[in-house]
Order: sequence, then structure tokens, then C-alpha cells
Amino acid sequence: MPQPGQALLRLREHLHQTRLLGSINSALYYDQNTVMPAAGADWRGQQLALLATQLHERQSSQVYADLVEAAEEEINGQAPASTVRNLRLLRQELERQRCLDPKLVERIARAQSRGNAVWQEARRRNSFEVFAPALEELLQLRREQAAQLADTEPAGRSPWEILAQPFEPDVSKARLAELFAPLAEGIPPLLERVCSLSPGEGFAPEASGVAEATAIPEPLQETLCAELLESWGYDPTRCQRSRSAHPFSSTLGPADFRITTRVVPGQPFSAFLATAHEWGHSLYEQGLPRGDDHYFPWPLGEATSMGVHESQSLFWECRVARSQAFASRWHPRFTRAMGGDPWGGSHHFWRGLNPMRPGLIRVEADELTYGLHIVLRFELELALVEQGLPVAELPELWNRRMGELLGIRPQRDAEGCLQDIHWAEGLFGYFPSYALGHLISAQLAETMERQLGPIETLVGSAEELRLQRWLAQTVWPLGRSVNGEELVSQVTGEPLSATPFLTYLSDKVDRLLEGA
Amino acid sequence: MPQPGQALLRLREHLHQTRLLGSINSALYYDQNTVMPAAGADWRGQQLALLATQLHERQSSQVYADLVEAAEEEINGQAPASTVRNLRLLRQELERQRCLDPKLVERIARAQSRGNAVWQEARRRNSFEVFAPALEELLQLRREQAAQLADTEPAGRSPWEILAQPFEPDVSKARLAELFAPLAEGIPPLLERVCSLSPGEGFAPEASGVAEATAIPEPLQETLCAELLESWGYDPTRCQRSRSAHPFSSTLGPADFRITTRVVPGQPFSAFLATAHEWGHSLYEQGLPRGDDHYFPWPLGEATSMGVHESQSLFWECRVARSQAFASRWHPRFTRAMGGDPWGGSHHFWRGLNPMRPGLIRVEADELTYGLHIVLRFELELALVEQGLPVAELPELWNRRMGELLGIRPQRDAEGCLQDIHWAEGLFGYFPSYALGHLISAQLAETMERQLGPIETLVGSAEELRLQRWLAQTVWPLGRSVNGEELVSQVTGEPLSATPFLTYLSDKVDRLLEGA
Repeated sequence: MPQPGQALLRLREHLHQTRLLGSINSALYYDQNTVMPAAGADWRGQQLALLATQLHERQSSQVYADLVEAAEEEINGQAPASTVRNLRLLRQELERQRCLDPKLVERIARAQSRGNAVWQEARRRNSFEVFAPALEELLQLRREQAAQLADTEPAGRSPWEILAQPFEPDVSKARLAELFAPLAEGIPPLLERVCSLSPGEGFAPEASGVAEATAIPEPLQETLCAELLESWGYDPTRCQRSRSAHPFSSTLGPADFRITTRVVPGQPFSAFLATAHEWGHSLYEQGLPRGDDHYFPWPLGEATSMGVHESQSLFWECRVARSQAFASRWHPRFTRAMGGDPWGGSHHFWRGLNPMRPGLIRVEADELTYGLHIVLRFELELALVEQGLPVAELPELWNRRMGELLGIRPQRDAEGCLQDIHWAEGLFGYFPSYALGHLISAQLAETMERQLGPIETLVGSAEELRLQRWLAQTVWPLGRSVNGEELVSQVTGEPLSATPFLTYLSDKVDRLLEGA
Repeated sequence: MPQPGQALLRLREHLHQTRLLGSINSALYYDQNTVMPAAGADWRGQQLALLATQLHERQSSQVYADLVEAAEEEINGQAPASTVRNLRLLRQELERQRCLDPKLVERIARAQSRGNAVWQEARRRNSFEVFAPALEELLQLRREQAAQLADTEPAGRSPWEILAQPFEPDVSKARLAELFAPLAEGIPPLLERVCSLSPGEGFAPEASGVAEATAIPEPLQETLCAELLESWGYDPTRCQRSRSAHPFSSTLGPADFRITTRVVPGQPFSAFLATAHEWGHSLYEQGLPRGDDHYFPWPLGEATSMGVHESQSLFWECRVARSQAFASRWHPRFTRAMGGDPWGGSHHFWRGLNPMRPGLIRVEADELTYGLHIVLRFELELALVEQGLPVAELPELWNRRMGELLGIRPQRDAEGCLQDIHWAEGLFGYFPSYALGHLISAQLAETMERQLGPIETLVGSAEELRLQRWLAQTVWPLGRSVNGEELVSQVTGEPLSATPFLTYLSDKVDRLLEGA
């Protein structure tokens, strides 16, 4: 492999500093969401705005543009494919940044920070009115952003599609509609089968009448989460976990990874499964090609899309921690910890881990209904961003569509349109990635099983590290060398489709219903 | 009061951004010392170095120098005294910054961050050899810094004195010698009286044979710390507390205050008293003149010296939380929590809070012996910085002088010259401020008592908020309008001296000995 030339090295140094600044941003965000006192929000917002401005400057300055151009001229098409790809991604991002007014970038950063704080308060007070002005402002700012970016985008991309690009490169509304249609068709019959077991309730803990008996004390949840992570290779010298209002995973440096969880009263497995989920995100980040620090500043060392990211978290949450074999293995540990078996056997413990039934909260939703939560948000985002839905009408439309899609209506906005942090931070176009994550996870898992044998078998013999190694060899090193759909095609040999996910769901429901 | 002119406003805006950057630094430092995984240290060091470089640039740039000059010209001697003072302090700091090579600033920041990480490891492994190269490097860098700064300083200031200026403006070795001599003379006889009670042991918990019985479980210590803070007006919307290896207090924004503590096995009151101590620091920071945000970016809104800062923490730790009246009030709470009275009455509980006897660890030291710990460090710093003491000889000299001053020798460097974080971060010249804090606290307390009546009486009737209000009206608003010694003269009407502290100590020892 040829040595990088001077222009590439200078560019690398610039990107390294940019990455340092960006990761300072992540550190402040982590602090904000785990320990920062509420009154710190305004100042923190100003800090984040300052960093956002600096980052934007670095990423759009003439100095930087010259560095990119010099590197492009230096390689003159002769470099390794990875270098060519890195420069192409940098060029694309540069053109986007240069379209944006720095004033707008700063206003968005401030509005995001304020939005976060206002959302926390609105949710606590269950008051959409408290949140509405912040949401209105964020929508306005994002529409402005999409308009400023339009020139750099392929013709015909809509504002929502433009905003969704950072999360899911090359995504389109039409492709999403094509991928999501089989879900809307295939999930309701499965849900019906599940609910037939105990009409309207599915496999909820309430259905078996053991809700109170299965309440796991908080310190015990903490212990079980720690044991889970330890069994999956968690290394406290590289990782740290905290509590936050909304679980998340974050990378603060090439060897500094954080995850957060929360304990939800009445949801005995919430923290446990969220731990599995966020750890899945973190494993992907830890496995991206940045071991020798060479890739960390380059685009190829980044996650390729939020859909792929989500496929990794969902793999560990759903395919592993919610699997039958995992339930069999951990059932004795849980019963020992509880000093008894409130679930009444391993099969019901497994059902407890898979409380399939319509629910109000996305992050507590099961694999079966999750997609419908996304359909709802996808529709409403489109309506808010580009179809003129007035913000004030959001709660009512949310509640109505929730009723139509899942048969239940929130009584409080805190359990409705105020439940998610995304819009509060101006992230429009993010939600579809969650559903894509389910599809990608299922399709990758099919290929994994062809190569390693059934996941259930490996989990049954506590060989999760073999699953991890497969992902570490097959998926994580790809970084941004391919986009999400290309990754799936490359690894599985087939274009992405909803079929593997629906097949998996149908099989799981069959097994869950056994012995009912 | 005249409105600030355009030049002042532009300067203020510049300072505001500088303050934002500086407080980002504080946030990263806080994260580093509370939750960051060890492997994150290298990257964090690079982040801090980047910020240090940016800060140095902002504080030494021609743009900034022009802003200061324009403001000086604008006011032309006609402004309020506070404005004149602000500009004078800014000018002084500007000249200092402009003397420093930016490369040196960056190297120091990196070395500090590395020093911190290496020190943590060296302490864990009890290996001075692990730490020695980092210390050598920091000393070398600081000597370079002192040499670069020499031109801006009054003639005759020694390297150590130059390095001590940021902590204690206008401090000199001669004045410290003058202030510390009465301590070296007055403390040993008091220590002798205390130790006569139980030779060689003083009032240590071990002396009364209740060490194990008085071990307070960690969660209970946590609860008692929380109650203490609540009774002193702690507001969780503005403050946050965490754990760290070394307790500290930090200001992350005009409404974002943090304190940390640690639980020390075998030291039942360590976390409790450290909480009082760090809260004292935080109260001062919270009370500095920055309420309307006007002062936050200006020097007058800052603490005037570390000695004054320390006087505030020591006031709450020693004058309040270690007082007899406080012990009487809290004794029932502690015995209720412990389900019994392992101390054997309120007087012995009070002695438990004042375990006067020679000990190895500075941060666990009592009021009586504390000054001798500082004398040791002051001597050794001078020797390291400007008298040619080789780093390799530090442990042996430390141990020998410890034996001479306090009659005990560390068995392990972790309990000797590796115990403090200061040198690991290249902070030379800081330690004397701790002893000054004792003197200042005692002298301020004398004046407070003349105006409010005995502190013991007010604490006995749970009126600590009156003490707090006095400090809030008399001390905190002064900010940097005066230096430490000037503050004492202004508030107490007398120049700083060791007499009030020694008088207080003597009286306390008398009362502790009562009934013995």
C-alpha cells in the first residue's frame, strides 16, 4: 500500500482536530444527559452552540476546502479504493456544509439544546403547550436547512429526504414505503394470533397476573445488568455506564465508550434489555475500523447509517437477550436473585421477556408492534416537515393514528407525542432507521445462521462471543465503505427485504404460543 | 452608573466566549475525574490540549490585545473603579499570556493530562518510579514557564513565586515564612497536650477502641451527606455531586456547580466532612458576583485566591461541621442511623469528628497537624522547582521530613509523596494556600463572631444560614476586587496573622480535653 502523501497527511491532521472538537461535543452531551443540573442547560446550550459553530467553520472553511482539493489532486485517481472513498465522502460532506449559513448552524445548535431542556420539562409536566414553541422553531430551522442544502442534493429529493440523509444515506420515501408495506400487511395477523391467547393483552406480564411479583428491585436490576455486560465482554477500562432519562450509547474517543440505561417502574426487564440494546450499539462503535487510530478521523471509520447501527443494537436485544435459549440460561439466575420463581417456569420467563401486545411507548415496544410505532412517526414527520401539519394539531393526530394503528390511545401526551427525545433535538428523518434496523438485523442473522448454525443453539451454550466475532469480522469493519443497503447486499448476497424479519417473527410467535 | 461603551461591550463578548471555552475545559475535567474510563485518558488529554491552545490563543491574540487596548482608551480613567480594576487584571493576565510560547502551553496541557493518568496508576501500584518521569517533565515545563513569565513580573520574584501567582496573587516566600513561623512554634505544644491524653494517639477513633463499631456503611454515609447538604441549602437544580478519587469542587457554568467526595474505608466521617468542605468551596463560587451574568466573564466575578477559597471550605468543614455544637446536634441523627451509640455520648462523638493526631494523609489531616503537612510540601516544592532536588530523591526526603515534622514515616509512597494530585497536574505553588485558608478562616470567623455572636451558639440552634448570609454579604461579593490579604484587612480591620487561628485551636483543644 502506498504511503499517504503530504496533502493527505495535512488533511488527516485537520480531520483529527475536527474529531477532537466533535468528541468534546459528545462529552458535553453525555454530561448533560446523565448528571448536569437543570439550571446548567442555558450555559450548556451556549457551549454546544459555540462548538457547533467552530465545527461548522472547520468543516466548511476555505482552508479545509483547499486541503480536500489538494488531497484529491495528490491522489489523482491512483490511490487505494479506501482513500478514494474517504475523499468522496469528505467532498460530499464539504459541499453540504458550505451550503449552510453559519448563523443557521448556530441557531440550530441553540434550539436543540433548548429543545432538549424544554422537552424534559414538558414531559414532566405532561404539557405539550410547553414544548410546542420549541418544536415549531426546530421545524422552521430544519426546513431552512433543507432549503439551503437542496442545491447539493440529487434533483427531486424532498425536504424530509434531505434531512434524513445524515441518518440513512441515499434513503428515499418511496424505498421506505416499499420496505414497510409488508410490515403493515404481515404484522397485524401475527399480533392477532398473539392476542388471541389472552384477548387484547398478548404476553404482557399483566396477562399472567404476576406484574407485582415480578417487580425486580432497582439494585438487583443494576447487578443483573452488570452481569450481562460482563458475560458479553464489557471492559470497564474502556467503557462506562450511567443513568439517563432516555437510554443512549455514545463514543467519546477511540477508546472511550459510554452507555446509559434507566430503570422503569413496572417494567422488570426494561433496564436489562436496554443494556443489551445500548451495548449492541457500543460494540459496533468499538468494532469500527479505528484500532490503529488511522481510521478514526476518516469517514470510513464511522458507522454507515443509523439503520445499520440499530440492527446491531436490536441483534443483541432481540435476537440474543429475548431469545428462548437466553431465557432458559438466565431463568435460574433471575429466580435465584428473586429468591423464588414468580414467572412459573422458564417458558413463562421467556414470555416475560417478550411481552408482545400493543403499547404506548416506542422504547418499551416489542418486536412485533415496533414497526407500527415507526410508521406513525414516519407519517407525522412527513406531515410536520413538508405537508403543513400545524404543530398544535400534532397531539390529536398522534392519538388518532395511534388508535388506528395499534388500537390504543394515550391518555397523556407524556405517553404520546412527548415520549421521544428526537424531535426535541430537531432530529427529523431519524425514526425510519429503527424499523430498518429490525429488517437488517433479521437478514444478517439469516446469513450468520447459515454460517455458524442456529443462534438459539449458540446462545444456549453461552457462546455469544462467537456471534460477536462474526459481526466483528463481517459487519463492523465495513465502516462507511458501503451504505446500509449495500452492506446488506454485500454480506447476505440479497437486497434488503422485510421477508427475513417477518419469517423470524412468525416462527418466534409460534414458539411463544407453544404450550399455551 | 455610566453605560459601558462599544469597546467594553466588544471586549465583554470576547471574554464571554473565552469563559465558554474555559468552562468546557472544566466539564471535561469533571467527567475525567468522575466517570471517564481509564483508556479514555490519551484522547481526553488531546482534547484538553486543544482547548488549552485555543484558550491561550484567545487570551494572547492580537485581536484580543486590541480589544483590551480599545477598552482602556475608551474609559480613559473615567470609568467606575470596578471597570478600572477589571481592565487592570485583564491587562496583567494578557501580558503574562503573551510571554508564553503557545507550544509550551500545549505541552503543559498534555503533560498535565498524562500526569494525572500516570499518577492514578502509580498510586494504585504504589510505584513512585511509574510517576517520576511525568513529574520530571512537569517540573521542567513549569521551570520553562516561569522563565518565560519572568519579564512580566516584579523584579526579584523567584521561579516558585512566579508559579504561585495564579493561586495566590502577590504572594512571596518571605511573607509565607513570616505567617507560617508561629504555626511551627505554636502547634507542637498543642499537639503534645492532645497526645498526652493517650500518648501518640491523640483523639483518634482507635484511641477509644471503637474503630470498627463506628464504621458507617457506605449507603448510610451517602444519606448523611445528602441530609447535610440539604440542611445547608443544597439545590439539586443548580448542583450535582459525584464520586472521584480525590474530592473537588468545580464550576461548570454560572448556574452549574459540582462537588465530589469519596468514601474512605476506616474513616467514618471522611465523606461527611469532605462534603462540608467541598460545599464550602461551592458556596463561595455560587456567591461570587455573577448573579446577573454581568460579572461572569469579568475578572471581578472570580475567586480572588486559593487561600480565600480554602478559607471558605475550611470554615464549613472545621468551624461548623467539626464544632462542638454541630456534634451535639447531629449526634442523635448518627446514633439513630447506626441503631446505637458506638461513640459513647455526644462529647466522644465530637472527638470522633476531631481525631487530632499525627497522620500520613493531608486530606485526612486534622486542623492541628494540617499546617505541618503544608510546611513539608512548601519546602519540597521549593527544593524541586528552584533548589535542584533530583526527582528520584523526593520519596526519601519526603519520608525523612515527615518523620521530623510529625514523628511518623510512610511505609508506602502511595501514603507519602504520591498521595496528592497537585504535582501530578503540574500545580506547584498551590499548597501554601491551604494553610493560608486556615488562617483566613479563623480571622474572618473572629470578626463574624463579633457581629453575630458565637458560631457555636448559632450552630447549636441550627442557624447556619445566618453564617452563610454573613459570608454572602461580606466576603463573596468582593470577587477579585482585592487580593487575599487585602480581603482580610478590609473585612477584619487587621492584617492577616496566625494569632486568631492559634487562639481558636488552643480553645478547641481545651474543650476537647474537658472530661478526659
